[in-house]
Amino acid sequence: MRILHRFEITRRKLIVTLAAVLVSTGAMWTAAPAQAQDDPLPSWNDGTAKQAILDFVWGTTQQGSPYFVPPAERIAAFDQDGTLWVEHPMYSQVIYCLDRVPALVAAKPELREVEPFKTVLTGDREAIAKLPMADLEKLLAATLTGMTVDDFKAEVEKWLAATRDPRWKRPYTALSYQPMQEVLRFLRANGYKTFIVTGGGQDFVRVYSEATYGIPPEQVVGTAGGIRFGYDKNGRPTLTKEPKLLLNDNDAGKPQGIHLMIGRRPVIAFGNSIGDRQMLEYTTAGAGARLGMLVLHDDAEREYAYGPAQGLPETKVGTFTQELYNEATNNGWLVISMKKDWKRIFPKGTAD
Amino acid sequence: MRILHRFEITRRKLIVTLAAVLVSTGAMWTAAPAQAQDDPLPSWNDGTAKQAILDFVWGTTQQGSPYFVPPAERIAAFDQDGTLWVEHPMYSQVIYCLDRVPALVAAKPELREVEPFKTVLTGDREAIAKLPMADLEKLLAATLTGMTVDDFKAEVEKWLAATRDPRWKRPYTALSYQPMQEVLRFLRANGYKTFIVTGGGQDFVRVYSEATYGIPPEQVVGTAGGIRFGYDKNGRPTLTKEPKLLLNDNDAGKPQGIHLMIGRRPVIAFGNSIGDRQMLEYTTAGAGARLGMLVLHDDAEREYAYGPAQGLPETKVGTFTQELYNEATNNGWLVISMKKDWKRIFPKGTAD
Repeated sequence: MRILHRFEITRRKLIVTLAAVLVSTGAMWTAAPAQAQDDPLPSWNDGTAKQAILDFVWGTTQQGSPYFVPPAERIAAFDQDGTLWVEHPMYSQVIYCLDRVPALVAAKPELREVEPFKTVLTGDREAIAKLPMADLEKLLAATLTGMTVDDFKAEVEKWLAATRDPRWKRPYTALSYQPMQEVLRFLRANGYKTFIVTGGGQDFVRVYSEATYGIPPEQVVGTAGGIRFGYDKNGRPTLTKEPKLLLNDNDAGKPQGIHLMIGRRPVIAFGNSIGDRQMLEYTTAGAGARLGMLVLHDDAEREYAYGPAQGLPETKVGTFTQELYNEATNNGWLVISMKKDWKRIFPKGTAD
Repeated sequence: MRILHRFEITRRKLIVTLAAVLVSTGAMWTAAPAQAQDDPLPSWNDGTAKQAILDFVWGTTQQGSPYFVPPAERIAAFDQDGTLWVEHPMYSQVIYCLDRVPALVAAKPELREVEPFKTVLTGDREAIAKLPMADLEKLLAATLTGMTVDDFKAEVEKWLAATRDPRWKRPYTALSYQPMQEVLRFLRANGYKTFIVTGGGQDFVRVYSEATYGIPPEQVVGTAGGIRFGYDKNGRPTLTKEPKLLLNDNDAGKPQGIHLMIGRRPVIAFGNSIGDRQMLEYTTAGAGARLGMLVLHDDAEREYAYGPAQGLPETKVGTFTQELYNEATNNGWLVISMKKDWKRIFPKGTAD
C-alpha cells in the first residue's frame, strides 16, 4: 500500500504530487474536483478512511495518473462476516446449521441422542457455544452436505426468507453495512470487479450475494467442499455436496483461494479480523498502488464493540487482535472505525 | 437443449412459432431481421450449426422472447483444446512440460538417468508418446509445481513467445480457431459471460487467455493443483505451486469445476471430445433454453481429421467417440463440421 503513504496526509498534497509528476512527463491528466458534486460515499463521515478510498479510486482510474491501474487489473476483495455484514454474536451460517438440526433429526432419528445434535436440540445457546470444534465440524458436515446443490440452494433461500436476527428483527440480508454497500458500488462504477473472499461457505454466500451485494456467484470465493457428479433415477445429471474440504478459505487459505478462483492478485482488500491478515498481506505486497483496510467494531450502541485492540472484549468471531493492529500500522493498512467513520450502519428502511 | 428442437428446422419456422406465442400473450417483441446487416459469424458457412447459434442468441436475448435468459444467467462454457485451438498431435501444455525438462535436469542432475526424464531428453517423440501415464504424471508434477505462481507465469510467457508450432511455424496462441473467436465475441456482445472450462492446467491457460480469447483469468476453470502460502527470505508473501491435485477438470470434473468456480449452470457449452460429455449433459439438462455443441475435427487438409465417429483414426487427444456421437444425437447437441461449417480455420494473418 505504498501509494497510501503519499495519500494519507491530505488530498491536496496528493494532487500537487501527481501534478508535478505529470507536468514533467507532459501527460494529459485532469485533476479531480476539490469537492465532488455527488458524494459517492454519503454514509461516511469525512476523515482519513473516506478520503483514502476516494483518493485511491481516483488515483488508480485516471488515465495519465502515475498510479493508474488498467481496468482488467482492478480486482477488489472483501471479507464478508464483520466486513460487509453483521457477524456477532454468531455467524449466520452457523445459525443456519443449528436451525437445520430438527429437520435432520426428524429424517435420521438415530441422531437424537448423539452429540452434538443432542445439545443443539436443547436450544441452550450457552451449551451450544461451548461445543468443541470437532463437534462443530460434525454439525457443519451433517447440515451442509449430502444433498444436491440445487436442494441446498432452495433450503438456504427458504431459511433466509423466514429467519430474523433476534436483535433487529430483520432478515440477515438486511444487515449489510450501508457504508460498505457504497464502497462496492463506487468501485464497480470505476471499473473495479468486486469479489467476496469469505471464510463462510461458498455455496451458502452465493445464494444471496447477487441480491444483497450486487456480487454474482462467480465472484464469491469461500470455504468449499467436494462435489460429486452423478445421475438421479431419471438419468438427469446431479451435483451432490460431499463432506470433504477442498478449500478452507480462512487465513492462508484466503490468498490460496484468490489464486484458485480469481487468478490475479487483488489491488484492494477489506477485512476485519486476523483471518484476513494473509489476504491483506498478499494484496498490499503487489507492485503499484494497493489499498488495505480493516473494519473495527467499536460501536456498541449501533452495532457491537469487540476486539482487544481497543480494549474491547474478545469474542469467538472476527478477532481484531493487537498483533493485527500492529501489522496494520506497519503496513499502512487503514483502520475504519464504525463509530467515527460511519454516519449510519445499515441501509435506510432496514435496521437503523 | 429443447429449444433447439424448435430451432433446427428453419429460422422462418422459429419466427412464426415465437410470433404466435407472443401474439397470444400480448407481449411486445421485435423479430430479428431476416438478414443481419453485419454478419457476426462471417467465418461460418450457412448451415444448421451457424443458424443454431444465431437463433439461440437471438431467442435468448430479446425481451419478450419466450426463451429469454436474464443477463445474469448468460453463462457460456468452452472447452479449450480442440474446441478453441489446435490440440493435435499433442496438447501444447504437454509440449511445454517436455521443453522444460532440459532446464530441470540442469538444475537437478540426478534426474538425468531417471525415467521419464531420460527418455524425454532423447527427444524421441515416438518413445515419449509411449511413456506410461504414471511417468507422464511425474513429468507434469516436476515441471508444473515447486515454483511460485509468479515464476511459473513468467516461464510460460517466455515459452509462448519463443515456441512455434512445427506445422504452421506460428506461436501456439496464433492457432486459435477464427470461427470460435467470432462465437466468443458474438456471445459477449449479447451479454453472455464466456468461460473456458479446460482439462488443461488452470494456471497455464490463464497466462494467455485474456490476450488470446478475451477471457480474463478469473473466467478460466481448469485442472488445478494445491497452492502453499508462505514468505520469502525478505518476508514478502509468496504462493507456491504444490504437487497436489485439487481439481481434475476432465469428464465429471468439468461440471464439478463449473460449480466450484462459477456456481451456476451454464446456458451454453461447447466441447469436442468425450471429456466434455458431462459438461454438456449438465448444461443442457437445465430448465429453459440450452445450447450444446461439439466441434468435429474432419478437415485433414486445413487442420486435422480424427475421431472414430467419422471413421477417422483414433488419437490420444480429444476423442470424439461413437458413444459421444450417439449421445449428441439423442440430446439434440449439434455437431460442427470444421470442413463444412467453417470458411476459414485460423485468424487472418496467422496460420492460413
